[in-house]
This record gives sequence, structure tokens and C-alpha cells, in this order.
Amino acid sequence: MNAILIAVTGPEPEAWVRHFRTLVPQRELRIFPAHMGDLDDVAYACVWKAPPGILRPCSNLKAIFSIGAGVDHIFTDPNLPDVPVVRIVDDDLTMRMGEYVVLHALMHHRFQRAYDTQQRERIWRENRQPAASAVTVGIMGLGVLGRHAADLLRHIGFRVAGWSRTPQTVEGVSTFHGAGGLDDFLATTDILVCLLPRTAETTGLIDMALLRKLRRDGPLGGPCLINAGRGSTQIEKDILAALDDGTLKGATLDVFEAEPLSPESRLWTHPKVTITPHNAAASAPGALVKNMLAQIERFEAGGALQNVVDRQRGY
Amino acid sequence: MNAILIAVTGPEPEAWVRHFRTLVPQRELRIFPAHMGDLDDVAYACVWKAPPGILRPCSNLKAIFSIGAGVDHIFTDPNLPDVPVVRIVDDDLTMRMGEYVVLHALMHHRFQRAYDTQQRERIWRENRQPAASAVTVGIMGLGVLGRHAADLLRHIGFRVAGWSRTPQTVEGVSTFHGAGGLDDFLATTDILVCLLPRTAETTGLIDMALLRKLRRDGPLGGPCLINAGRGSTQIEKDILAALDDGTLKGATLDVFEAEPLSPESRLWTHPKVTITPHNAAASAPGALVKNMLAQIERFEAGGALQNVVDRQRGY
Repeated sequence: MNAILIAVTGPEPEAWVRHFRTLVPQRELRIFPAHMGDLDDVAYACVWKAPPGILRPCSNLKAIFSIGAGVDHIFTDPNLPDVPVVRIVDDDLTMRMGEYVVLHALMHHRFQRAYDTQQRERIWRENRQPAASAVTVGIMGLGVLGRHAADLLRHIGFRVAGWSRTPQTVEGVSTFHGAGGLDDFLATTDILVCLLPRTAETTGLIDMALLRKLRRDGPLGGPCLINAGRGSTQIEKDILAALDDGTLKGATLDVFEAEPLSPESRLWTHPKVTITPHNAAASAPGALVKNMLAQIERFEAGGALQNVVDRQRGY
Repeated sequence: MNAILIAVTGPEPEAWVRHFRTLVPQRELRIFPAHMGDLDDVAYACVWKAPPGILRPCSNLKAIFSIGAGVDHIFTDPNLPDVPVVRIVDDDLTMRMGEYVVLHALMHHRFQRAYDTQQRERIWRENRQPAASAVTVGIMGLGVLGRHAADLLRHIGFRVAGWSRTPQTVEGVSTFHGAGGLDDFLATTDILVCLLPRTAETTGLIDMALLRKLRRDGPLGGPCLINAGRGSTQIEKDILAALDDGTLKGATLDVFEAEPLSPESRLWTHPKVTITPHNAAASAPGALVKNMLAQIERFEAGGALQNVVDRQRGY
């Protein structure tokens, strides 16, 4: 039957279904939770934070697609069928993450929060700021998203450094890698941008010890953090402590240890924190559905799936 | 004697003097208002909003340099000596204007002010936003600053349109020109960026009639304005009225009819307005002083001055 199972939790699950229906009206669709039917017919599952165990009865499953950049939500399922898990690598998603990183790097660089405060107080005062060429944005994670963000930041005039698990070469970017390269990377970084996936190695990486290693005498009056990767990478109590004691000058967070962020969290009201609701790379469902359907079409024509996750590595 | 007169009003006049002293310690400097001396010795004047009439006694003046991108502050002097007036065209200044335009275009595009409000109210909600490729940023003024901003915006993924007095060709940009091209330019524009100089033709150009011609059914839920050119171009009461009646969704203003902006202005407190204190392209004095000294050196070696203003045109 080669049916597609759509198992998406989140604000707009019906938007995904609508796009599949429009683009492949002839294809049998199964929809979690209302229209599951006989799961033996399901060949492909397109998922986002689906409940653990729901893919187990899909005895003829050929591939699992994540509709977001992360795949950690898939591997939390202890009964995951042993089929390829495919990450989404899509220009639309990549471009949106680039917008987010550029916007928030510039907000820190151009002291936008200080100007917001001045506006509330009707104060006309210029805060002398450095040229972008005096500021280093350090990107953790040099995959497709990190490389695109690096390219945009370089074009604007920033110095860009990059850190990744394995050695990488990116034009115009000073690259560092592995545990051995981390301290030198942090020591050169004024604005730290985290785009790392959720893995055992990245869990809890952004803690007080790491934040203390960022460039202390940089031209922004203190280092800033942007996390648009995964909330599991950050220790939120350490970020708050670092903001309070001046280790960090500011933080922009799109991801959190638990999402949605609890109304109790002190991050919401901290004057040095900007919060966005995990929307940095939120893509138009239409663009991502087209991308997945193109993969399925190529696969059914005998081609190989692209962007298959290395389960050992976790991304 | 070939002395240089530095006549700069503003927050940090002494910073300019310091850079001249460091870079050309052997050159005779005259400083307004404290150390004017015999003005017959002055060959070059580097000015920013100097009081009218102060250049009149400079009988041997060879050139006047503006230390900012605008030159309108010079032509307000009815007794201006008839010597070349030189605009500053400097990479540092151009890059900073590019940062400003990108930052504020992205703030409108990514609904940053809506997220700021949500953060204050601890609301976790994604506001579905268009891809940059569905949004047109329209730039008025296609000189060095406008072309650089256009290039950065295109790179991020925006559609870019441009409008100028005379026909221009810019790669990847839909260009319009003159009074005849204005309406079509506005009808395609979601985010209007004004980088126009102050001239008789631009005075009062951004009024209610113009704002009503912006694209009404665009993907941002209404058009936005960014003015980083000159305050004389805008009618502030019309901008306020357009924000109040929904003609404009938001406005970012770096320049004003009168500067500093009066504490009485309703712009300070309007929830749809972002105000910055004419710092969009505020450059490091060191970079601009080097630029002017390079011009003087070339001129004294027999070369021609670059970026001389056409007095008729006003820029």
C-alpha cells in the first residue's frame, strides 16, 4: 500500500495533513491519532514528537522522516523500528535559521536592548559601538545551518569562528574542533551561537564553566549567548547565574530544557534575556512536505535516501 | 600653511581632534570654537553641523569635508565659500548602515516586537511568518549605502526593489526611478527603507499619501517603514496617523524632523515605533579621519578629490 503516516504533535498538525493531501491526493494517508487504520500498510512515517511506541506496529515501514531539523525526538522511542531515520535538510529551513542568527547577533552587536531601554526613558544618547569587523561570532555546529549562518555573518562584516565535533574547513571561518579545540574557540568568541544537535555529548555542555571561558575583554562589554540548537545543551540555572554576575552580557534563547518554557522560569523576566518560542527555523509546512515527498519519490524510483541519520552519532 | 580646521558639534568633538593629532602630528590644526586662530591659514575644513558663517573668513580654503554621510548641514550656510564640498564614502560607514538596515528589516520580518510583548506576558506562541523570499524590501536611494544594503538583504533571501532619482541597474534588484516610477515601486514594497539624502526634492516625501501606496496585502500583515536617511524626508504627524489607522504596521526611525527628538514627541511611546538616536551609520572617528587624510594627501600630490558633491543636485 505504501501509505504515509503523519504523526505530528504541535500547534498546527492539520496544516501538515493539508499539504500532503494537496500535493499527493492519490496517496493513502494515515493520521495520528484519529485515522491510524491498519499500520501494516504504512511505508513512511513523517513525525514530530510522536508518542513513543506508535511506530512499532508498522511492520513494513521503510523510512522515518523528521519534519524539523532535530531528530532527538525520534530516538527517545525505545521501540523504534530499525529503518533509516531521515533528517530534513531544506533551503527554506536553512534560510530561516540564518535570518534568526543574523537578527539576534545584530541585536547584541548594535546594543538594541540598551536602545529599547533608552526609548522607554526618552533618552537620546549614542552608545559608541564597535565595527562588526572587531567582533567575533563563534558558531558551535558547522553543519548546513551553521555554514549558512557563518556565510551571512561574514558578509555583514563579522569575524566568524566555528567549532564542531570533527575537523571542518569553512571559507573565511577560523575553525576549531573537539574537546581539545573548545577553549581556544571560546577565548576568541564575543557572541556564541549554539546550533548543536541533541546528543549524549552535547547534553549540558553550556554551563558556567564554559561561559566563563568566553572572551572577557571583547568590544561589546561582555560576551553574549544565542542558543537556537537544542535546550538540552544548556544549563539554565548557570545561564541565569552568568547573567547575574556579569559573566554573560546578554542571552537570546529559542530552546529550553523543557518546552514550552514554564511560566515560573526567571528567564521570562530577566532584563538581559530575549526569549523566542522555538521558532528560529520554523518553516512553512508546504516547503518541508515537498522536500519529504521528493525523497520518497526518489526512493521509490530506486534512488538512495539523503540525509540519513547516523544512529551512533545521533545526527 | 595648509592648516586643517575641525569644526564638529555633537557628543564627542574631542575624539575627532585626537585622531587628527595622532595621525598627522606635524599638521597645523585649528579647532572650533576654542582654537580658531588666523583662518587665512586654513586649507581644509572638516565639519559636522558647524555654525553658519564660520567658514567665510577662510580665504584660502581648498575643500570642505563632511564627516558624516549627509552634506545638507553644510549647504544651510548662506555664506559658504565656493570650494568643493566632499562627501564621506567610507567602507566602515557603509558596513554600519548595512548592519542597521538588516537588523531592522529582520526585526519587522520576524515579528520581533510581537515576541517582545509575548515575553513580557510569558506567552509561548509561534506567530507563523513568511519566508524572506515572500517579502520585498524596497530601498529608496541606490547610492553606495543603498546598494550595499540591497546586497546583504538579497543574500539573506529577501526580494529587493530599489528606487532612485535617475535610472540605476543593480544586480538582483528590481529598480524604479523618478516620480513616474514611484507608485509601482511602493506597490511592490512590504518594508520601505529610506536612505535618501536631504534635498529640495526629498523634503516631506514620506507623507500619508506615499504610505498609503505601499503594498497592502503583503505577507507581514501590513507595510513597515525604516528611515535611516534624513528626518527632513518624513512628515512625522503622517507617520503617527498611518500607524494609528493601520496604514503602517510598524516604523523604525533613526532620523527626525528635529534632532534630538523632543521628549514631547508621541513617537517615543508609540508601541509600533522603534527609535534610535541617529546612530545607524555612526562610524569610528578613526576610520573617517583616515579617509579624509587620504583624500587630502592625494589632493596635495596633484590628484583629484573624490566624492565631490554636485551643489545643484545637493548630494
